[in-house]
Amino acid sequence: MAKSNLDLVRDFPYYEDNNVVYSENLKNYYAFRVSGYDVTLGYILNSVVEKFPWPKDIWSIDSAAQTITLVAAADADPAHRSELMAQSIAEAVKAGCFEVLKGWRNEKYPVYGPGGEFLLEMERCATPLFGIVSYGAHMTGYVEDSTGLKFWVPRRAKTKQTYPSMLDNTVAGGMCTGEIPFECIVREAMEEASLPEDIVRASVKSVGCVTYVHVRDSRAGGEIDLIQPEVEYVYDLKLDPSVVPKPCDDEVEEFKLLTVSEVKEALARGEFKPNCSIIMLDFFIRHGILTPENEPDYLDIVARLHRRMPHPTVTHC
Amino acid sequence: MAKSNLDLVRDFPYYEDNNVVYSENLKNYYAFRVSGYDVTLGYILNSVVEKFPWPKDIWSIDSAAQTITLVAAADADPAHRSELMAQSIAEAVKAGCFEVLKGWRNEKYPVYGPGGEFLLEMERCATPLFGIVSYGAHMTGYVEDSTGLKFWVPRRAKTKQTYPSMLDNTVAGGMCTGEIPFECIVREAMEEASLPEDIVRASVKSVGCVTYVHVRDSRAGGEIDLIQPEVEYVYDLKLDPSVVPKPCDDEVEEFKLLTVSEVKEALARGEFKPNCSIIMLDFFIRHGILTPENEPDYLDIVARLHRRMPHPTVTHC
Repeated sequence: MAKSNLDLVRDFPYYEDNNVVYSENLKNYYAFRVSGYDVTLGYILNSVVEKFPWPKDIWSIDSAAQTITLVAAADADPAHRSELMAQSIAEAVKAGCFEVLKGWRNEKYPVYGPGGEFLLEMERCATPLFGIVSYGAHMTGYVEDSTGLKFWVPRRAKTKQTYPSMLDNTVAGGMCTGEIPFECIVREAMEEASLPEDIVRASVKSVGCVTYVHVRDSRAGGEIDLIQPEVEYVYDLKLDPSVVPKPCDDEVEEFKLLTVSEVKEALARGEFKPNCSIIMLDFFIRHGILTPENEPDYLDIVARLHRRMPHPTVTHC
Repeated sequence: MAKSNLDLVRDFPYYEDNNVVYSENLKNYYAFRVSGYDVTLGYILNSVVEKFPWPKDIWSIDSAAQTITLVAAADADPAHRSELMAQSIAEAVKAGCFEVLKGWRNEKYPVYGPGGEFLLEMERCATPLFGIVSYGAHMTGYVEDSTGLKFWVPRRAKTKQTYPSMLDNTVAGGMCTGEIPFECIVREAMEEASLPEDIVRASVKSVGCVTYVHVRDSRAGGEIDLIQPEVEYVYDLKLDPSVVPKPCDDEVEEFKLLTVSEVKEALARGEFKPNCSIIMLDFFIRHGILTPENEPDYLDIVARLHRRMPHPTVTHC
């Protein structure tokens, strides 16, 4: 059955919608914490808590409060906490407990505390187990002529571990520790789409960010129902028709130039990777393609694209 | 002291930030309800509940649950509920209880229930007493030349009841019952800025909406701490430099063409009407003027501009 645009952005329940449903749902998770900080940094699914081989000298588990806390000395620094996390993840890899850990990326994602304080970093593929906020940058490359807008849409390689063969945004990438959004999008535009650095630096436009709490399903590969709160910084790049993005690694199969109608149809068929659908809808809203008069779920979609994150976030200034 | 951009968008507390603060704050309000619908339609300040002369045959007050319910027969229609509301407001006007009711507008604002069902309408100036969601359309008229963007910014007349002499968006207006956003902005562009209908229809672009829960302060005139959840549909209109907006009623004193720096300075001085500040920030974010690298509260601001409404909302399709 065709997906509505609202189907593409449904995420974690909202307290405002139904506080009972919200609270019941939270019982499925433990709060991930770090000693010394009175804040929840992520949500860990109960089944993950049961299976993960938590080293006793590193972790404190409170089953009544449903919290699991990485315990480090009061004067611990991010490097020390990261080392404790790395040891713990290595134990889990050794025990072969989790499918998602088989997709080792060798990229480090940061975890921030109150006020955006950098607390630790961890291997990218482990982040859904801890439900921490991850950061990325997505860019829509488009051309405009007398017939309207057309979008450069890549298809992911069949061999990708996550979301193989699905449609993607022109350029998209996760931000590792220390990266800033603008430099991330410039780097990814070269690496993923062979777009010349000078063109991207001169013409790419920062146009906002989308924030949401994604719940992983089978398309992601690995365990399902894991939580991924995501911040995606959003960029538009209007390209001259002479500039053609090209794959330059084995992550992308091909780029195609799709019309608005073709993108809408692919969205309705669920062909876009979930977080890329969200970026396309945000583009459609900002460019007057989806309007309050043609999209019945307009308000609901706009709010869900900009969810207040349930955990501390970073600043890049 | 100069206001930060985050100061301009601070609103009602968020459950996600601190559920204790959120729940404590809600104790200052009664939930406004309509019999037959299991949903909160607005928040009424306790001091309003105490002073309002609630006709006993129309209203049911539950002090323990902090709810106040308009009681209508099971088969009542919107016209009947609106009549009961009008009678109640007329009693309050007669008793002279509220400053805000002295600003009678003779415009009717709608109240929607679950699924966007139209339940009743009420006089515009009474809506902050009930804390219902109100709807408007705001348009930023701008020109672009080699020196950058400039904005057509009107100053409100000294004689306006609300926010006199403050800066406003090029065109902005509330939506009465039955209006749709696009027609509202076309009408207001003619009425408030003398912009030709054909130019607006051809060039105005729907670019999203902002949603937030404003808490009224003294600048609004009348009682303070009243709640105004607002939905503002947002439009951009790039104008040819030859098109000059002109006041055409007594609500606007003058239009001035301000640079980005001049708008930023006026925002920092708190010169913009609060909901118009929010529209300017949204424009700055969508047009790459505020970015993740130059605005320390970027994520916080973007989420606060797109709050999930705590009450049912309408669809305009």
